[in-house]
Amino acid sequence: MQNVQVWGETLRLLVEMAATAAFALSGIMEAARKRLDAVGVCVVGFLAAFGGGTLRDLLLDQRPFFWVRHVEMLWGVLALCVLAMLFLRTRHFALTERAIQWPDALGLGLFAATGVHQALLLELPALVAVLMGLITGVFGGVLRDVVCNQIPAAFHDHRPYAVCAFAGGWVYVGLWQADAPGWVALVSCVGVTAGLRALSLWRNWQLPAWKT
Amino acid sequence: MQNVQVWGETLRLLVEMAATAAFALSGIMEAARKRLDAVGVCVVGFLAAFGGGTLRDLLLDQRPFFWVRHVEMLWGVLALCVLAMLFLRTRHFALTERAIQWPDALGLGLFAATGVHQALLLELPALVAVLMGLITGVFGGVLRDVVCNQIPAAFHDHRPYAVCAFAGGWVYVGLWQADAPGWVALVSCVGVTAGLRALSLWRNWQLPAWKT
Amino acid sequence: MQNVQVWGETLRLLVEMAATAAFALSGIMEAARKRLDAVGVCVVGFLAAFGGGTLRDLLLDQRPFFWVRHVEMLWGVLALCVLAMLFLRTRHFALTERAIQWPDALGLGLFAATGVHQALLLELPALVAVLMGLITGVFGGVLRDVVCNQIPAAFHDHRPYAVCAFAGGWVYVGLWQADAPGWVALVSCVGVTAGLRALSLWRNWQLPAWKT
Repeated sequence: MQNVQVWGETLRLLVEMAATAAFALSGIMEAARKRLDAVGVCVVGFLAAFGGGTLRDLLLDQRPFFWVRHVEMLWGVLALCVLAMLFLRTRHFALTERAIQWPDALGLGLFAATGVHQALLLELPALVAVLMGLITGVFGGVLRDVVCNQIPAAFHDHRPYAVCAFAGGWVYVGLWQADAPGWVALVSCVGVTAGLRALSLWRNWQLPAWKT
Repeated sequence: MQNVQVWGETLRLLVEMAATAAFALSGIMEAARKRLDAVGVCVVGFLAAFGGGTLRDLLLDQRPFFWVRHVEMLWGVLALCVLAMLFLRTRHFALTERAIQWPDALGLGLFAATGVHQALLLELPALVAVLMGLITGVFGGVLRDVVCNQIPAAFHDHRPYAVCAFAGGWVYVGLWQADAPGWVALVSCVGVTAGLRALSLWRNWQLPAWKT
Repeated sequence: MQNVQVWGETLRLLVEMAATAAFALSGIMEAARKRLDAVGVCVVGFLAAFGGGTLRDLLLDQRPFFWVRHVEMLWGVLALCVLAMLFLRTRHFALTERAIQWPDALGLGLFAATGVHQALLLELPALVAVLMGLITGVFGGVLRDVVCNQIPAAFHDHRPYAVCAFAGGWVYVGLWQADAPGWVALVSCVGVTAGLRALSLWRNWQLPAWKT
């Protein structure tokens, strides 16, 4: 039984690291497209990777930040930025974007779950908890796009992204209130979020647009 | 006497709800103009409605946020976003914009007063209190415009807006320091802010521009 | 000996005031270039001058903000904005920009040192402390550019700026950990940061760009 728990914890860590790397890469590629310099590439990579979680901790008044407790993640993203500057070329972008879709979808689910979890621990209302999960998963990308001077992709590319985290967040809240074990809620939230995201990419679902 | 107080409280609540709806609608219409998808419309509506107050609470280190204590406001704005997506059309925008000018002006005054009030309770200096009022009233719109990738209208449309809240804030500070009853300070601040705003719209006042 | 300390403190205050004025002026000129109105000029001036330090205090959960303790700095920047609107003309911009390079470089070092110092007092890890110094020095300008709807200059003009603060921050951390006296660490950090910045301007150093 304990063996299973260790395995679960290791798996969670692997997903978290892969997701952080995927988020950072999305920032790095956006910065490269905008022809930013080395400092800009690093900053936008950091914003994309840590922006959502930092905003969550700021809103929930949690200190220290998760990247202060796990400073090795900062070093990892810094190394990733340097490696990307050295080896990643524009012609690799399309391939990289396809490759990071899956860790990104898993990370969206995982980050949403951690946001919902922290808000529920603070006994915040259900809707607020779901919004915190959404902010954790989505606002890294929003900050990345705001700094790169464009409208956030999550708000206008018509592909479900935040909506998946929203649905996954309600799953987490429901299971929490039904006193399900923590890992069931976590796995269900990640599964629903990533599953919906994968389905929407596969079936090319479109969010409703404004009717003029 | 108690009757009057209940009436006053109800009136205050009505103004606050109308103002929040007006702020949210300004965000929704801006998002629609930028052709954002359903998620973008909701997020920009939320930012416009709750951004200023959230920034105030963040800067003053007040928790829980006002929308955690009044979670029904979150549901209300969410419902407003959905209704707007279903029924509001581009051809209604000019009319809606004229209709929300008055709750918007009242809300600017009311939000500025709450910002000033909270800062004074924390015994912050007068200028800081006035700035907090200004931030509460104006920064929802600023965040809305930043996310929609344009220069905030409050900073370049040359129509007095933040300046009205600035003046109203000083009125509140002055009456507070003269130990006037709370409702007198509140009503005066709202009256001066909304009055100045109405006057400036009516007489088409222009803020001074940069002289080249 | 005490005489020297008073001199040092006075010098530090002078540098801080000159740097704040330089940062505010960079915001005022940017706002003027974007043809903002009087409110916009003031807000962007305030953001450029106080944004970095406020973000640092927000992330480190320090209250009251430094501009609440020194409210005369708010009045000073407000006066500077009014004076600039009255007397600064577009034809003075090139000259002003050259004139503020030096207080700006000194201020970058000083602000970075204060950020690192506060983070070290809270016993945060070295990398986090250096990042806090960088944020203090650089994010005022980032907020200025985001509100003016352009990609932050610090991220794409290819001239070393944040990198100088990064190097200076490590110098501060190293001397702190070697138990050097506070003023040695401060002077070294300011010296290294401002020196590197001056060198890079003089020799026209360029940051590496993305290789396509």
